[in-house]
Amino acid sequence: MRLATVRHGDGTRAAVGDDAGWVLLEETDAQRLFSAPDWRERADEALRDPARSAVEEGAFATPVPRPAKIFCCGLNYRDHIVETGRPVPEFPTLFAKFADTLTGPFDEIIVHDTDRVDWEAELAVVIGAEVHRADREQASAAILGYAVANDVSMRDWQQRTLQWLQGKAFDATNPLGPWLVTADEIEPKDGLRITCAVNGVIMQDGDTAELVFDAADLVAYVSQITVLRPGDIVLTGTPGGVALGMDDPRWLRDGDVVTTAVDGIGELRNTIRFE
Amino acid sequence: MRLATVRHGDGTRAAVGDDAGWVLLEETDAQRLFSAPDWRERADEALRDPARSAVEEGAFATPVPRPAKIFCCGLNYRDHIVETGRPVPEFPTLFAKFADTLTGPFDEIIVHDTDRVDWEAELAVVIGAEVHRADREQASAAILGYAVANDVSMRDWQQRTLQWLQGKAFDATNPLGPWLVTADEIEPKDGLRITCAVNGVIMQDGDTAELVFDAADLVAYVSQITVLRPGDIVLTGTPGGVALGMDDPRWLRDGDVVTTAVDGIGELRNTIRFE
Repeated sequence: MRLATVRHGDGTRAAVGDDAGWVLLEETDAQRLFSAPDWRERADEALRDPARSAVEEGAFATPVPRPAKIFCCGLNYRDHIVETGRPVPEFPTLFAKFADTLTGPFDEIIVHDTDRVDWEAELAVVIGAEVHRADREQASAAILGYAVANDVSMRDWQQRTLQWLQGKAFDATNPLGPWLVTADEIEPKDGLRITCAVNGVIMQDGDTAELVFDAADLVAYVSQITVLRPGDIVLTGTPGGVALGMDDPRWLRDGDVVTTAVDGIGELRNTIRFE
Repeated sequence: MRLATVRHGDGTRAAVGDDAGWVLLEETDAQRLFSAPDWRERADEALRDPARSAVEEGAFATPVPRPAKIFCCGLNYRDHIVETGRPVPEFPTLFAKFADTLTGPFDEIIVHDTDRVDWEAELAVVIGAEVHRADREQASAAILGYAVANDVSMRDWQQRTLQWLQGKAFDATNPLGPWLVTADEIEPKDGLRITCAVNGVIMQDGDTAELVFDAADLVAYVSQITVLRPGDIVLTGTPGGVALGMDDPRWLRDGDVVTTAVDGIGELRNTIRFE
């Protein structure tokens, strides 16, 4: 099943969907929908009727608009870590984002006061149930589904100090979506191709089977530190191929189109705009 | 004027106060109070009546229960930076916390899975108005007031990777309070003594005049990155004297009492408990 937040009239609506299309529900967004205990029955019921709506790309908003916590993991693709000569880490490198960083899957990304804008294709894990000090099995059970994200980073700000946050916290620079695919339908551990292309040229081409800490590992680890609740997000890190890793970095420019895809989920497409 | 959140019956209430005592208002907490446009008139009105209530220490909850964003600044006391031989930084080192890290000013701090618990006395800045891409003057105008905080840190977790977040994100480990003092009453730039004592022995003894980036600097800087709104918090960093800086660190132990004070605001007193 897919869950989306769709712009509709002056506001947004939750939508459930499958390969055939979408059914709009009453809730204002997918997070409000899946935070209700009986959401799955309601969603199943909605999909029982074969009628579907088409939704234009530009109508998709970020499916989860109000995560209280976004944890991001750095240095998490084994092949990329080995290729850079680093040891495989014992612990996940974690940093935070705030909900305001999120933007829609096909929205323009407007940046300012930076000239080192970089891409980071990521698999996003969305929490569906409260989870605290969990083991892998409990953590896995708390995962509602997966989405595609791009942790677009202002490397000049990121590298001003040792802590990465300031390069990662710009408002409306991190597209998420285009929708969630529920965890019963895909298993990133089995390997999903993850790519990022700039103006159609593939820059990152990874496989989620290469994650050092997979979705359940990360949720279990974070849950030792803090409780996670429905709508919280864990970004699982990015494979090799970012501009930062190039000898002569090809930073993003005004008008560049960044396409971020995870097989089995979908594709984001965002145009970069410099203010 | 002081603003507090006070435990009352099964819930909490906002309170306004002065040297004479407290007046409880209808709102469930101070954040809800000061997020209303007419809050100051209502608070002034409440204080016009000379009747005051006494509030027991244990009744104070964290004055701001739901900040959407907590920005923390590291390496920000000039005397301490110079003493460690580092250059004075050009940019603030920023990391994040989530609202769940906060706890009351006199609550026990319960820790687990760590044996390197450290103290960090901090001046907390509370935002009272939306502020975005502001200069120093605009940033200053958006500051509602100040509180005392202790960014209690699990150094073992903090030092597992390059990013500090995981040592700083444990639930209910960061006391805040005991109340806010509004910005019209104190000016940290002029110098407020900030101390942290463990079992009565002073370990940190700094002065907010030594901040490299003062409250207005930090709010202005963060506001270039992301919008700040009423209730958001900026922790301004800690002076020298933390356990981490000792040759033979004296980590916190079960039963230790940590007293954190900023002159002109008040004092937190928290007992450490190991699970």
